[in-house]
Amino acid sequence: MTDQQAIRGELLTLETMSTVEIANILDEAAQFAKGKEWRSNKELFIANLFFEPSTRTRYSFEVAEKSLGLHVLSFSEESSSVQKGESLLDTVKTFEAIGANALVIRHPENDYYQHIREQISIPIINGGDGSGHHPTQSLLDLLTIQQEFSTFSGLNIIIAGDLRHSRVARSNADVLTRLGATVKIAGPKEWMAGYEQSYQYVNLDDELPKADVVMLLRIQHERHDGKMEFTKESYHKQFGLTVDREKNMKESAIILHPAPVNRGVELASELVECKKSRIFKQMKNGVAVRKAVVKRALNQF
Amino acid sequence: MTDQQAIRGELLTLETMSTVEIANILDEAAQFAKGKEWRSNKELFIANLFFEPSTRTRYSFEVAEKSLGLHVLSFSEESSSVQKGESLLDTVKTFEAIGANALVIRHPENDYYQHIREQISIPIINGGDGSGHHPTQSLLDLLTIQQEFSTFSGLNIIIAGDLRHSRVARSNADVLTRLGATVKIAGPKEWMAGYEQSYQYVNLDDELPKADVVMLLRIQHERHDGKMEFTKESYHKQFGLTVDREKNMKESAIILHPAPVNRGVELASELVECKKSRIFKQMKNGVAVRKAVVKRALNQF
Amino acid sequence: MTDQQAIRGELLTLETMSTVEIANILDEAAQFAKGKEWRSNKELFIANLFFEPSTRTRYSFEVAEKSLGLHVLSFSEESSSVQKGESLLDTVKTFEAIGANALVIRHPENDYYQHIREQISIPIINGGDGSGHHPTQSLLDLLTIQQEFSTFSGLNIIIAGDLRHSRVARSNADVLTRLGATVKIAGPKEWMAGYEQSYQYVNLDDELPKADVVMLLRIQHERHDGKMEFTKESYHKQFGLTVDREKNMKESAIILHPAPVNRGVELASELVECKKSRIFKQMKNGVAVRKAVVKRALNQF
Repeated sequence: MTDQQAIRGELLTLETMSTVEIANILDEAAQFAKGKEWRSNKELFIANLFFEPSTRTRYSFEVAEKSLGLHVLSFSEESSSVQKGESLLDTVKTFEAIGANALVIRHPENDYYQHIREQISIPIINGGDGSGHHPTQSLLDLLTIQQEFSTFSGLNIIIAGDLRHSRVARSNADVLTRLGATVKIAGPKEWMAGYEQSYQYVNLDDELPKADVVMLLRIQHERHDGKMEFTKESYHKQFGLTVDREKNMKESAIILHPAPVNRGVELASELVECKKSRIFKQMKNGVAVRKAVVKRALNQF
Repeated sequence: MTDQQAIRGELLTLETMSTVEIANILDEAAQFAKGKEWRSNKELFIANLFFEPSTRTRYSFEVAEKSLGLHVLSFSEESSSVQKGESLLDTVKTFEAIGANALVIRHPENDYYQHIREQISIPIINGGDGSGHHPTQSLLDLLTIQQEFSTFSGLNIIIAGDLRHSRVARSNADVLTRLGATVKIAGPKEWMAGYEQSYQYVNLDDELPKADVVMLLRIQHERHDGKMEFTKESYHKQFGLTVDREKNMKESAIILHPAPVNRGVELASELVECKKSRIFKQMKNGVAVRKAVVKRALNQF
Repeated sequence: MTDQQAIRGELLTLETMSTVEIANILDEAAQFAKGKEWRSNKELFIANLFFEPSTRTRYSFEVAEKSLGLHVLSFSEESSSVQKGESLLDTVKTFEAIGANALVIRHPENDYYQHIREQISIPIINGGDGSGHHPTQSLLDLLTIQQEFSTFSGLNIIIAGDLRHSRVARSNADVLTRLGATVKIAGPKEWMAGYEQSYQYVNLDDELPKADVVMLLRIQHERHDGKMEFTKESYHKQFGLTVDREKNMKESAIILHPAPVNRGVELASELVECKKSRIFKQMKNGVAVRKAVVKRALNQF
């Protein structure tokens, strides 16, 4: 799929994308983050199709798109013909027919794009699929790390928390490893399924002093079917980044979290804006990354 | 009402509109379909007020409006003061007061516009009223036929399906007849109420070989109160355009459907994009028609 | 808070704002109402965050913002991460991080802005908080009165109706008094709680002949928990502006109502557009006021 993603301007998953292509996107994103301006000289439409709630992803795409001079069609499931039973494929083909030049899609189904991408001729940018992928989130994590350390090579990175339900854990772990970092995982053992073969499972307290980057994952209560094995307090104490744990981190280390943060669970509320936290910088970088990704999707026009 | 619709730039129903006026709109739409560009040189606002779900109509209006350089106010019932009991008239007058230069309205009540059009001085474009009218859908059907056959005169047209609940069957049948075509109707007999006096009821299998245009109507499950007289399979077999039936159509004939299609019910899924299908062309034409209609509405400014 | 609101370009409440600052805003709004045009020469984003339904406020802000050349991010609670438990503070900080230059917020909690304003560096414009404040509504009421009488000094003003649940009664009463008007209150006695110490409670029939301005308040059924002490008819007869009562008003007097009107309750339906009514002019003025307020918020950029 690698070449196709690049050729067609798609962004579906980083897992099959070459490190060269990833580096290209990050380079362009870094320039946007530094203030680069670029506007389409054609009149182009992009449709944001969100089949799940979202604030950060939806509106940072919208900021990026409007800054690039695009017309934005903002679609929510609630007030659409999906209510009349219309399929994703037919919705997508409708937007192509009425003039959308690219689509951003968030959908609760893993790999939703597999059965539709070949049936349309405009690029899809994946804004998150089920518990599968969330490539623009991964890219903004990468950009934030690159801005800090200039390289990925040799970095010690801990991914901690609810890996099983995470859209970004897998592709972040995979891509960071390919880029030369050492990735270790932490959190409740039963949430590590599928990761322990490839990544070293560590105790947070042992590893924190060595880490350059701590990536905390959001506990997705909405994907736990109401059954949480821990109280918020006990999770925080056992697996969260507490005020005490943060003190054991390196001076130069940084904290990442995709947000929204469950304050006092994954992270002590006081740490959300601490010196090491790059959480709001991640959001800011999200706009730069999405500008790069949208520009790439529209390059063919 | 004919003259008033033209004079005021309204589009409420085709039934009382002269064939001259219809031809004028189609001419302009045909030019837009061929790539004509036109932008308002004034700063104008249009409000899209949707009191029912919609994808195609809503977003093709939005594409048309934004292409014409208008500011778009996109209103959905859910997050409005309609929740506080505000009437349609008061909602409409509010949008007039705050600066809308025209209104696109979809509303579940038949003829909703009758009691409001005289109370405002800006034009209403009807985006669909109950099971009453859907004039831009009719116009895009007409444009698609005209592009294909250059004329309406002498064409054999079958309208098949749920005529009783359809917003477009009546005005399409009426207008096509006025324009010189022969319209016949097909489908479950009990769904033909009100049509059999004026149009010949035919058996699909007998008539398909003679038809130039087959207009299939969507079964509006949401208007059947959950009571459907047929299973999907039995409807498809008796009244749908099956793969086998399509083979009996003329080489030059075309298939229209307003979409969303109930795949495997009105139409075999394989036929949605077959050579004869103009379903996605209809959507594309929908943007051209709406550009023409919106430009007409704003002509007075 | 006075100076801070002016310095930071915030608009939270008129109660702590100086009459000089209020006059400045009204002057600019009056110019916009007369047709003044102003467009930002920078690319700026404003986010409209509505946590309660709204038509007038939401869309008149949107008209104002788009007229000023801003990019508008239109946020509704339903399709956002608030569904995943995200707090107002985190939502607000997200919009700041992704590039919003100002925020318009409507929220059901009184004084919601108190705990967030110090944590962000962009100005908040209060679009209504619980039963607390609604400063742009107050400003548009003031503008409408000023356009009519050129001054506030010496005017007799009756505020009638559901003062207890009103967002504007308190700040209107306070500001109008500070500006030199005499404010009296009318309506069901039990709805006057908190006002009777400062304002004279009057019988509508006695006072109407002397009033220059009658400000009717909307009965907010949605804030009465379903318990209404009156039938609509009995309220109208006892406390509403009936057709008969209107006849006793001065020739030069005007009627204001924030809308949506409960027709036949606060006001006879026939009076909504009578000669004395300024209800639709208020809406029109709402756009001018919001242009002034948004321009003020963006002045620092």
